Amino acid sequence: MRSFASDNNSGVHPAVMEQLQRVNVDHVIGYGDDLYTERAIALLQKEFGAESDIYFVFNGTGANVLGLKAITSSYHSILCAETAHLNVDECGAPEQYNGCKLQTVATEDGKLTVEPLKRFLHSEGFQHHVQPRVISISQVTELGTVYKPAEIAELASFAHQHGLYLHMDGARLANAAASLGLSLRELTADVGVDVLSFGGTKNGLMFGEAVIFFDKKLSSAFKFIRKQGMQLASKMRFVAAQFEALFTDQLWLKNAQHSNTMAQKLALKISEIPEITLARPVEANSLYVILPPQLIAPLQKEYFFYVWNEAQSEVRWITSFDTTEEDLNRFVDTIKLQLKR
Amino acid sequence: MRSFASDNNSGVHPAVMEQLQRVNVDHVIGYGDDLYTERAIALLQKEFGAESDIYFVFNGTGANVLGLKAITSSYHSILCAETAHLNVDECGAPEQYNGCKLQTVATEDGKLTVEPLKRFLHSEGFQHHVQPRVISISQVTELGTVYKPAEIAELASFAHQHGLYLHMDGARLANAAASLGLSLRELTADVGVDVLSFGGTKNGLMFGEAVIFFDKKLSSAFKFIRKQGMQLASKMRFVAAQFEALFTDQLWLKNAQHSNTMAQKLALKISEIPEITLARPVEANSLYVILPPQLIAPLQKEYFFYVWNEAQSEVRWITSFDTTEEDLNRFVDTIKLQLKR
Amino acid sequence: MRSFASDNNSGVHPAVMEQLQRVNVDHVIGYGDDLYTERAIALLQKEFGAESDIYFVFNGTGANVLGLKAITSSYHSILCAETAHLNVDECGAPEQYNGCKLQTVATEDGKLTVEPLKRFLHSEGFQHHVQPRVISISQVTELGTVYKPAEIAELASFAHQHGLYLHMDGARLANAAASLGLSLRELTADVGVDVLSFGGTKNGLMFGEAVIFFDKKLSSAFKFIRKQGMQLASKMRFVAAQFEALFTDQLWLKNAQHSNTMAQKLALKISEIPEITLARPVEANSLYVILPPQLIAPLQKEYFFYVWNEAQSEVRWITSFDTTEEDLNRFVDTIKLQLKR
Amino acid sequence: MRSFASDNNSGVHPAVMEQLQRVNVDHVIGYGDDLYTERAIALLQKEFGAESDIYFVFNGTGANVLGLKAITSSYHSILCAETAHLNVDECGAPEQYNGCKLQTVATEDGKLTVEPLKRFLHSEGFQHHVQPRVISISQVTELGTVYKPAEIAELASFAHQHGLYLHMDGARLANAAASLGLSLRELTADVGVDVLSFGGTKNGLMFGEAVIFFDKKLSSAFKFIRKQGMQLASKMRFVAAQFEALFTDQLWLKNAQHSNTMAQKLALKISEIPEITLARPVEANSLYVILPPQLIAPLQKEYFFYVWNEAQSEVRWITSFDTTEEDLNRFVDTIKLQLKR
Repeated sequence: MRSFASDNNSGVHPAVMEQLQRVNVDHVIGYGDDLYTERAIALLQKEFGAESDIYFVFNGTGANVLGLKAITSSYHSILCAETAHLNVDECGAPEQYNGCKLQTVATEDGKLTVEPLKRFLHSEGFQHHVQPRVISISQVTELGTVYKPAEIAELASFAHQHGLYLHMDGARLANAAASLGLSLRELTADVGVDVLSFGGTKNGLMFGEAVIFFDKKLSSAFKFIRKQGMQLASKMRFVAAQFEALFTDQLWLKNAQHSNTMAQKLALKISEIPEITLARPVEANSLYVILPPQLIAPLQKEYFFYVWNEAQSEVRWITSFDTTEEDLNRFVDTIKLQLKR
Repeated sequence: MRSFASDNNSGVHPAVMEQLQRVNVDHVIGYGDDLYTERAIALLQKEFGAESDIYFVFNGTGANVLGLKAITSSYHSILCAETAHLNVDECGAPEQYNGCKLQTVATEDGKLTVEPLKRFLHSEGFQHHVQPRVISISQVTELGTVYKPAEIAELASFAHQHGLYLHMDGARLANAAASLGLSLRELTADVGVDVLSFGGTKNGLMFGEAVIFFDKKLSSAFKFIRKQGMQLASKMRFVAAQFEALFTDQLWLKNAQHSNTMAQKLALKISEIPEITLARPVEANSLYVILPPQLIAPLQKEYFFYVWNEAQSEVRWITSFDTTEEDLNRFVDTIKLQLKR
Repeated sequence: MRSFASDNNSGVHPAVMEQLQRVNVDHVIGYGDDLYTERAIALLQKEFGAESDIYFVFNGTGANVLGLKAITSSYHSILCAETAHLNVDECGAPEQYNGCKLQTVATEDGKLTVEPLKRFLHSEGFQHHVQPRVISISQVTELGTVYKPAEIAELASFAHQHGLYLHMDGARLANAAASLGLSLRELTADVGVDVLSFGGTKNGLMFGEAVIFFDKKLSSAFKFIRKQGMQLASKMRFVAAQFEALFTDQLWLKNAQHSNTMAQKLALKISEIPEITLARPVEANSLYVILPPQLIAPLQKEYFFYVWNEAQSEVRWITSFDTTEEDLNRFVDTIKLQLKR
Repeated sequence: MRSFASDNNSGVHPAVMEQLQRVNVDHVIGYGDDLYTERAIALLQKEFGAESDIYFVFNGTGANVLGLKAITSSYHSILCAETAHLNVDECGAPEQYNGCKLQTVATEDGKLTVEPLKRFLHSEGFQHHVQPRVISISQVTELGTVYKPAEIAELASFAHQHGLYLHMDGARLANAAASLGLSLRELTADVGVDVLSFGGTKNGLMFGEAVIFFDKKLSSAFKFIRKQGMQLASKMRFVAAQFEALFTDQLWLKNAQHSNTMAQKLALKISEIPEITLARPVEANSLYVILPPQLIAPLQKEYFFYVWNEAQSEVRWITSFDTTEEDLNRFVDTIKLQLKR
């Protein structure tokens, strides 16, 4: 099976698997007090800045929820796009774990801008209303769009001006960096991001995300938050090793570039099928595509994927680090075949 | 480094690593809707009973806290031994996540018995007091002791008689089964355990635990609890694969038998050193040992381990699935050498 | 000062104050085990039905949040109008205390209808999404509108059909009943409401609300929820006594009728001022009024009130059980005088 | 009925009731933005210090839980006596609402001392363990004993030395002050208390407690905590008015002195009955008394009270601001009569 449902349908990159085997020797202290973890953190600090404070966790929900817990109290609110994974796909974990209300903004393209956020500031100091504390953005967004550095900087500047933090759900940050040809730092620390969930799982890891604080004042209690938050791995070396592989020879970038390229190629191939149209520009590794309604169910049988907007007959396809040209060809052939029926 | 600090200082069993590689082909649907997960669950159901409901999570804290969440409301209390990992080593996660107070009992050997639990029942229906709902026991206990089936059955019977559930933190259940020569089912489903955290990490996995419900009425909402509780792995096949390896050719049992045997051998070797005495009987894979106080610090420099009771100069050593006789010999030689200084 | 800012700016009805004094004799057991509480509950059960289960709490936030806690788990969502007090004015308490996400619907008039709620049912059983469990409506709504019994019944029927409950925030339920000429039961138990917050404070009490369950299966643990939720009064007789006064000689109805009548009279007087228009029909005791923007600030100086919609220059005025015709006249005179300046 | 079960079985002091009526005129802004609240706060600041930050809440559970929330994060622990109301009688609210574990110390007399608290500091910085943040003491304690200023100062000094706060549950602080002949400030601000729950309900109020912060840095967010915590009264003037009465002509002290005196007198009368012995010294307004076991049930029928320690046949009696000599005589006569049977 070769899936276009999500980039977590793929497996583990061979280099990551090799590194897992390589560190599988001898004993080391658990919970992160080991050389492998130290080494991985050093590698990430090279990329994100020497002053960044880096913690590995199991998954994206954990990274987002706990990173936000470090910078909020329960009477705070988190401002995000209506489409944010945080709002839609965490089964309410941010509200449940942090107590915070999410205050959402409807967007065209999944990207927040300053203007519609201003109205939430009206309640400052009014005890009956939650108090905005964080702006959370997804890079890449859930609609496949990519924030440009200036857009992030503007949000950060607005946030900081009003005593708020800027949080980034970077489950696909690597794809954004690859798309823009920029370093990870240029999209985070350099433009004012305060706390980052840096995703590895969707980019070739077996599991593992990093919560990265760009100001150590914000992370002083994070080791307790991670442990109490059920996200502290005992055999931490096996999370660290994966990140080590990802940050060796820029594997993170190569993987992201590859999946982005595959998305572009798929878009190109699709553009030749008149019954199918792209709903949105392809900026990273996801495609939002309007299909003939009667095509969806039969195609899902052979290639499972998610319907994004039933009313619009819009579906989402995602390419992975290991998607091949052959995968694309077979997928497009299947589509063409089914359209003929 | 060969450590006796904890059985999570060891790495991953080769058979587990091989299975991880074996399943690293192609794409599969995420979050557990895949054949590997189905297969692993079927294997565990063979061991624990066809009617058992099985969910994989990342780690022991997650398994304990979420398993307990499924069977408690916030005004409930959880009865456990003062020494329980749940009470001591989860950074307060059970209270924080479930809201429940832990009501603890001081024990000689880490094992709960019915008698001292009775006093907690006095508050039944009294609105000012938390309402006992779960008895939680650790098998193997945190003091290295092992509950016999009849002891578990008695606690279960007491629990059920009073409308309580019996929860087992089975981080080292395999070691208990190996120690008693009993099946996993004989120590859980057959003696009235309602919810089990079954540990894999300390017995040769890279990561991964299973939350097992022996009554499906208790687990009807657990998939939401796991997701909201940040413990749902997207690339679930890589948790499932590990359990598949563990339950193939009884690897779980072989690993546990081996570490138990190594503990017995270490105990035997230690018994020849007059300056050192065992503080407790060795029933599974851990040793509680009274050392000459001046030996502790220098020995920790070469072999890190935890001091269990500073006042008593009691330390804890744990053997692993991969501890070798040579490891034991070198360790004992080091001790002898240091004692001579 | 005579305020039109809120019906909680008024004081305590004399009959309530007298009853407080009347019960201020001798000693009684605390926490509700007293004759006064028994008597008050019996009076409310006459109104709401003998099978209703009634609990007094301190305030509206407590009534709403704890009533909802009794019927939700943390992975549930609560469906309500965007304008709901629950969503806007509880400082995030429902999310924080119950863990639940609020899923909101934009409405014209503050009233929920079935149609826009249907989309939330799509996620049933999908572990990544919160699971709708309760529809919560406000009667009177936050826009001053009143649900008719058939409208409530339709929501209840839809809720029950899909395994949801219907919750009513009845902070001003008395005003709704007075407006429609119906009994409290006809607006709650008879049309399928499952849990009700019945407000007393805005209708002449000093403090005190009742959480009323129309199915005792839902309230079996509520005494623990109330105590743990910090809403159990020790000198309960002084809450009960107020409700006794409110339900003696239909004081609740007289108070509500009076404030409703005053709202109608104020609307009539306003209708003679051409510069001012009603933004919405006056169905209970609140008026939403479009003022000339330059009038707002000076008028607020003499009569504090809340701006409802700054962009529309819309403000909210509320009449109370003790608003007098003279109050209305002076208020209108002040407005006229300021308009001349 | 004249009860010795608790000082919350009494009613409201006449001066408090009069003040409630006195402020029941006209309209005022809700939620504490009124002159009465301002006036009451000023009166309390005279007593507790001009720099104290004072918030009124509904009840003792609310005061304790929310005051502690202001100074803790969920991974913190709260150190208290095993017998603390916080630990025993809040239905788990501190754990549930704040997430914090309570770490308790067994005491002879309900009073904490520095020595047994030291062991909790061993876990500082160890991520697996909760981090002690607050020492919470009850003044008067739940065993009727009274902390002397030097004892409080020693605990405060120890707390501050180790980065902890000192919290006082002062449900009966007035009785302690009366007992020692000291001002409220001498028992709180002057000896290092950081946060105080000051109780009014047990000392003649209808309801109402004050949360008092002696350092405004600790209370900067408390208005949000109080509102989200369901403890913000809309008609706040009726809480404030009660405190105004309590702090006019030192009513708080007179009430406390009276109930203390009545306790002493009861103790004296009891001392003449050979079958009954005092289990503890009477330092404030409660008596712990060893009764002949067969006396308890029949006496409870005429005078309800709580059995403190069934094994010891120890019961608790409490006198109130309105206990009369006649009450004492009748009670003692009843006891004598029953002993004769």
